This record gives sequence, structure tokens and C-alpha cells, in this order.
Amino acid sequence: MTTWQSFLEKNRERYIEELFEFVRIPSVSAMKVHIPDVKRAGEWVVSRLESAGIEHVELMPTGGHPVVYGDWLHAGEDQPTILIYGHFDVQPPDPLDLWESPPFEPVMKNGRIYGRGASDDKGGMLTPIIAVEALLNTEGKLPVNVKFCFEGQEEIGSPQIPDFLEKHKEKFAADLVLSSDGLLWSADVPMMLTGLKGLASFEIHVTGPEQDLHSGLGGVVQNPLEALSRLIATMRHDDGQIAIEGFYDDVRDLTEEERHQFSESPYDEEAHKTQLGIKEFFGEPGFTNRERNWARPTLDINGMWGGYQGDGTKTVIPSKAYAKFTCRLVVDQHPDKIVELVRQHVAKHTPVGVTAVVVSSNDKGMPYLIPSDHPANNIVGQVLTEVFGTEPHFARVGGSIPITDSFRASLGAWTFNFGWTVMDENLHAPNEFVRVRNFERGQRAYCMILHRFKKE
Amino acid sequence: MTTWQSFLEKNRERYIEELFEFVRIPSVSAMKVHIPDVKRAGEWVVSRLESAGIEHVELMPTGGHPVVYGDWLHAGEDQPTILIYGHFDVQPPDPLDLWESPPFEPVMKNGRIYGRGASDDKGGMLTPIIAVEALLNTEGKLPVNVKFCFEGQEEIGSPQIPDFLEKHKEKFAADLVLSSDGLLWSADVPMMLTGLKGLASFEIHVTGPEQDLHSGLGGVVQNPLEALSRLIATMRHDDGQIAIEGFYDDVRDLTEEERHQFSESPYDEEAHKTQLGIKEFFGEPGFTNRERNWARPTLDINGMWGGYQGDGTKTVIPSKAYAKFTCRLVVDQHPDKIVELVRQHVAKHTPVGVTAVVVSSNDKGMPYLIPSDHPANNIVGQVLTEVFGTEPHFARVGGSIPITDSFRASLGAWTFNFGWTVMDENLHAPNEFVRVRNFERGQRAYCMILHRFKKE
Repeated sequence: MTTWQSFLEKNRERYIEELFEFVRIPSVSAMKVHIPDVKRAGEWVVSRLESAGIEHVELMPTGGHPVVYGDWLHAGEDQPTILIYGHFDVQPPDPLDLWESPPFEPVMKNGRIYGRGASDDKGGMLTPIIAVEALLNTEGKLPVNVKFCFEGQEEIGSPQIPDFLEKHKEKFAADLVLSSDGLLWSADVPMMLTGLKGLASFEIHVTGPEQDLHSGLGGVVQNPLEALSRLIATMRHDDGQIAIEGFYDDVRDLTEEERHQFSESPYDEEAHKTQLGIKEFFGEPGFTNRERNWARPTLDINGMWGGYQGDGTKTVIPSKAYAKFTCRLVVDQHPDKIVELVRQHVAKHTPVGVTAVVVSSNDKGMPYLIPSDHPANNIVGQVLTEVFGTEPHFARVGGSIPITDSFRASLGAWTFNFGWTVMDENLHAPNEFVRVRNFERGQRAYCMILHRFKKE
Repeated sequence: MTTWQSFLEKNRERYIEELFEFVRIPSVSAMKVHIPDVKRAGEWVVSRLESAGIEHVELMPTGGHPVVYGDWLHAGEDQPTILIYGHFDVQPPDPLDLWESPPFEPVMKNGRIYGRGASDDKGGMLTPIIAVEALLNTEGKLPVNVKFCFEGQEEIGSPQIPDFLEKHKEKFAADLVLSSDGLLWSADVPMMLTGLKGLASFEIHVTGPEQDLHSGLGGVVQNPLEALSRLIATMRHDDGQIAIEGFYDDVRDLTEEERHQFSESPYDEEAHKTQLGIKEFFGEPGFTNRERNWARPTLDINGMWGGYQGDGTKTVIPSKAYAKFTCRLVVDQHPDKIVELVRQHVAKHTPVGVTAVVVSSNDKGMPYLIPSDHPANNIVGQVLTEVFGTEPHFARVGGSIPITDSFRASLGAWTFNFGWTVMDENLHAPNEFVRVRNFERGQRAYCMILHRFKKE
């Protein structure tokens, strides 16, 4: 009997050719002119899933760019159901003149395939399809039940996906999610991504005099921009700790084990400074930079404005001042509670002579931390270690991945990072590429992990 | 012999008709389409000065709207020279639909003349012309030497006037200036305006990361908007006192007499709040509102901005933050020194992780306070008391009048408020009007004051 290993080996050239074919479809979700191409890419995925042996494949409408569903559910009720996620839309190719070869005419150079979407996420999402094809062709069945959810709107923020998943939660029901839209630590080192941050967002609006005043009338008037500045200054202690009462109350403290895991992942302080374009770090005292970014909540002003912004001088005392804020939250903080604490802080610290209101926003998300005792942690870690020949580094990210939030909210399933993209592969930039060796490691990794999830 | 009093009385109807004629010229300095009308108004002034008996009258080019000069210098070298100032340009008439009669078709109603410029400053500047005509026609000469400086660009900030006066300082040389572009305290109460504030202006530019960052990278980065807010918060104590070291060092303290003068001028706290559109006052402790506005230096943010100002949420840590400031200064503060003190303060208080630079501006002016022992104080006060039948209230203003600064700088002459406008006369608004009784009081006041300036 042929093994999936030799099947993959035998079909290498065809799979590379398929990735080329997939990349040639300019499925740019952000551009109206490419709406039919996004659909065409979805149709390509439908037929590719079908030719791999996946059943019930369909292109599902969402109100925006479509989703492709498919499943293979013959492993038995006692076996887990794994949902595999990816996306077939890509970023716009601009600026075109910086591409060394046309973005939708893929080329192979030095073991890399260049083209828009080669890495993010067409290369990524092709690997589980190839894997199930190899398993079905060599073993006649899959070790576990498998469903696919491939979307066409990831690069524009998946506007319809939360509602879509909520509506179809039974169809997509699964025990866990593997995301092919995922990252490696570096070209040959895998990564276990265990935590994402939540988000709270709000604005503060300060009103001073009812109308803009000539500053010649001043000396007796609280200036709303200054009042807002003073209010902002009360929100953090000089040492970097957020000073909003109760802000840290619900934060789950890092365990010694987590702090140890964090410290094991390589870190280069100077490279980090260069990446951020800063000369000095500034953050919450008592924590490493990594802990601050991965596991401590933050408060940031995203925008602030009021009064005159043009050239020269305008001697005005403005009537209004505004600031936009976001907080990145960690377990077990809740965005609604954070906004309420801000409201209380502002009520208590508003300077005399102005009014300040906190306006909450619907842009919010729950923090996300895969439980450390989740059984899949070990399985994912072992497969990555075997495929890459080295243990994965643990990581969290300071940002949020909305789809992960939706899978958790609608399906009750945790999402595991199981993709093959490296940060240096020019995602969202000219000359995007994927490393062929990782495209092929990915195929093997999916074959292996489906076997490991099988319950004996 | 006819007296100037009876001459004025006899020609009342004609002078009102002349004001009508003057107002009919739409000399809107801010509107390109009215450039010829501003010039036409200047020519009207030239011929009116000539018909009054003034000599060497000319329309002088400035590079922008012209200036009208004229003089009568036969009073002898031992007599003082009085420069009389006013302007023949007017504000735009918009919004036109709120005018009850067309702005450039003056009408008389209930002792008021309605029309754009009737009060500011066509009515005002006509009064000294009428006065010298009355004196020359009845006494054959003027008691003192008189020069006129009427400009056509006051309403657009007199951009060419400082250079023009500096260039022609010998021609305009005078012992003091009477400004027909001046205010009464109220419809029947005159005002002695003795002080104006100076101006220092600067910007603070704060730079954090070299480029905007996704806020998911945060927790380790000083946010430039927050840093600027914190920096601003250090610039004032909670109680309202400016905290920039040395800021008050050069401030000339109010004398007991000045504080008494201030307190004698009527003040209605509730009306002041309504005027400003505020619910509470806020300012430097230890001073009355009047003292704060008239005689204490101020620091105001005129504009502030950075990051995202659009709809919704953008999770960005901006690279830059900006704020514009002006300080209103009092004697003996100097704008350059104030900006230097700000620079030192910013250098000392810039939060970790960002750089901050203070960018100074050329928009600056010296504070202005007519010496309390200036002999004209008594003369102006006495004439106003006689004409209005009540003593003038003392006042300063929290703003600046640039031309006053220029007369002081180029001619070395102090400017006395000697105009007849009341704040309720819709200056710069629809339905501007002047009270005929003050138009006529003004004519008498100029006749009287020229006599009083005569040295026996």
C-alpha cells in the first residue's frame, strides 16, 4: 500500500502547479473590480475539495464574499470533528511597480514561490486539502471527522463572518479549529500561539465654552484641550501603570510556568526596538517587554483632536476636544466593564469648568487564551516538533484575530495556529512569497495531526 | 464768530448724509471682488479730507489695500502732533439674508444708522474729519498739529501696515495717536482703555515610534498623544497657576490703585458666564476674573491633533502628536523669553520614550500698557467725562491690537482709545448700526480734545 508520505512525494510537482493556478486568480477582496475573481477563487476551492474527495462541498452566500464549506464525516461519532479554516481572498497588490514579477503570475525562484497570496493564505489553505487527498487516496478514509471553512473576506476584516457563523453554527460545529492562516516563529521554527488580546474602545468628548472663543477672552476659562490632556494624564501613573481604578482587578496573573515559557522564546531587545522604531521602551513596571505585549492589558490613545490644526496661529479657545482610545484586554477582563471603569474614572477626574462624556463603541472583543490543559496543546506541539525537528516556541500576540473570537463564540471551539507563513514573506507587501519547504511541511503536518487526533 | 459747536449743529443733516454716502461704498477688504471698492473708499476719504481743509492728502500704496495720509501742521513747532487713526475697509456682509435692510443701502431708524461699517469704522473715522472741518471753518486753524492715518486693511489683520509704518515713520511721526476705531463701555458710558496684552505663540511636536504602529504591538511603547497630554498637564498646577518655571518672573504686579480702578468698572459675573458660554470660571488663584483677563498672563492650547480622527475605531499608536499654543502676555514679559522658558520646561518634563520639540512662531507681540503718568490720560478722561456727562470706566483687554503695537514700535507713540462704537452694535454681524448721538458726541469730543492738547 502506498503511504500518504510517498503519495505527497509523488505529486509534489502537481501541488506546486496547483498553487500557481490558485495564485493566478486575482481574488482581491478589497477591490470591487475583483468581486467576480473572489467568487471564482471560491469556485476553484469547491472543485479542488471535491477532487480531493471531500463531500457536501458548497459555495455559501454570506451577503458579501462567499464561504466554502465541505466535510468528510465518516470517522464515526466517537471520533472528534476538526474544523479547518483558511481564506482564499488576498490583499491588493499595490504598489505594482515594486513587484519584481507580476503579482498574479507566480514564479518559482530559489525554493520560493512568488505571487500575491502565495503565503497568505493560498499556500496555507492548500496544505490541508492536499493532506486529506493524500490520506483518502492511500488509506481510503480520514482518521477523524473533518470540516472545512474557507472564507473570501479575511483581508477586509470578515464583516459578514460573525453573523454567518452564528447562523450556521450547527453546520460548522466542531471540537476544535485548525487555522491554516497561521504563522511560524521563523523559517524553520514552529510556534504555539496560545493567546490573543481582547479589545475595548471608547471616545472621550470634552466640552468647555459653548462656542469657540477668541483667546483674548481667556484667563478665566478652562480650555477643553488642556482639560482633556489633564484627564488623560490621570489615567496612568508616571511609572507606566494604568491608574484607572479597578482596571487590573480581573486580570488573570501569569503563572510561573507561563513566565518561564515566555522567557524561553528567543527575544532580541535591540531588534524589537528597531521593529517598533523606538529608542526606549515604556510600559507597566514589573513585567518584561514580552509579558507587557503578550499578557498585560494596555490603554492607548488612537487619535486626539480639537481646535485649529492649520498653518500659522489662530488665537482660539476651542469649545470641544476629542480623543479615541482602545484597550487591549487579557483574560478575564471584559470590555464592557473596562468602559464602565473608564466612565467612573472620568466622572471623578474631570477638571473644573468642562464636561466630559465617555462614548462607548461596538468595536470590542473578548480576550482569548487557550486553556493550558487543553489536550490539543500536546498534540499540536508534538506534530510541529516532529515536522520541523525542533520544538515550537510559545507565543501570544498583543492583537486580536476576530475569526478566532467568532469560532469561540459561535462554535465553542478553540482555534490552533497551524499555518506556515513566516513574517519575512512580504505579506501585504510587494513580492510576497512562500517557502516551498514549508508548503510541503504543512502537507505532512496536516496528515500527521489528523492521525494524532484519532481516539483509539 | 460762529463756534465749532454751532457749525456742527448747523451741518448735522449733511454729516449724516455723508456717512450714508461713505457706507454705500462696499469696501470689503477680505473679498477680491471689492478691491476696487476699497480703493474707491480711500479716494472718497482723500477728497473728504481735502474738503475739510487738510493738506498733503494722498492715497499711499502699501502693496495691499492703500493708506490715506493727510496733515495740518501749522500750529507751530512747540505744539504737539496728534496722529488720528481709523480704517475705511469693512467686514464682509454675510449672511446677507439676516440683514433687515441691504448692508450697503444705509437707513436711519430710531436714532440709529444701519449699514455695514456704519459703526466699525466709517462712523468712527468720519468724526475727527468733521471735527477738523468745524475747527478750520470757525477758528481758521487747529490748536495742535494733526496727521491722519486711515487704512484699508484693518479687517484682514493689516498685513502690510507694520512694514508700511516702519518705512514711513518720519512722515507719520507724532506725539500720540488717537484711535477712532475704539469702543465705549456702553451706549452712554465712555471707556479709558489703558492696556492690551502681548502674544507669544509656539507649537510642541512630539514624536514616538518612527511610524504609526498597530496597537497590537503596544504595551511597550510610549504613546506620543499621551506623552503630549502628560507634558501639557505639567504646564499648569491644578489650582490654575501656570507651572512653567519663571513664567511670572517679569510680570509687573498690579498696584493697589490699579486693582481699585479695575474693581470700580461694573462687572456682572452671570452676564460674563453667559457671554463666554461657560458654567464655571477657571483661572489663576488670587485674582478676580477681571484681573485674570486684563492683567495676568495666560497660556492656551489653540489646537491639538494626532492619530486617527475619522469615524469608528482605528487601532493605531500614532507616530506624531502636535499642539499649538498662544500665551497672552502682560508688561514686562517678552514673547521670546516666554518661548525659551517653555523650551526649558519641555526639555525637563518630556516623558520617557518620546522626543518633543518646541517650534516658535513669528506671531508675537509686546504687551502694551499706557504709563499711568502719561499726561494724555487726564486730558482724554476729562473730555470723555464732559462729553458723556459721566466718568469713563477704566479697562484693559485680554487681546491685542496689532496697529497699536506698530505705532508704538515704529513711531514711539502711545495710542488712546477715542472711538464711539458699542459692543451691541452688531460689528462683524448682520444689521450693524451706529447710534447717531454717539456719532455726534464723537465730533464734539475731537474738537474738544484738540483744544485740550494745545500747550499754552
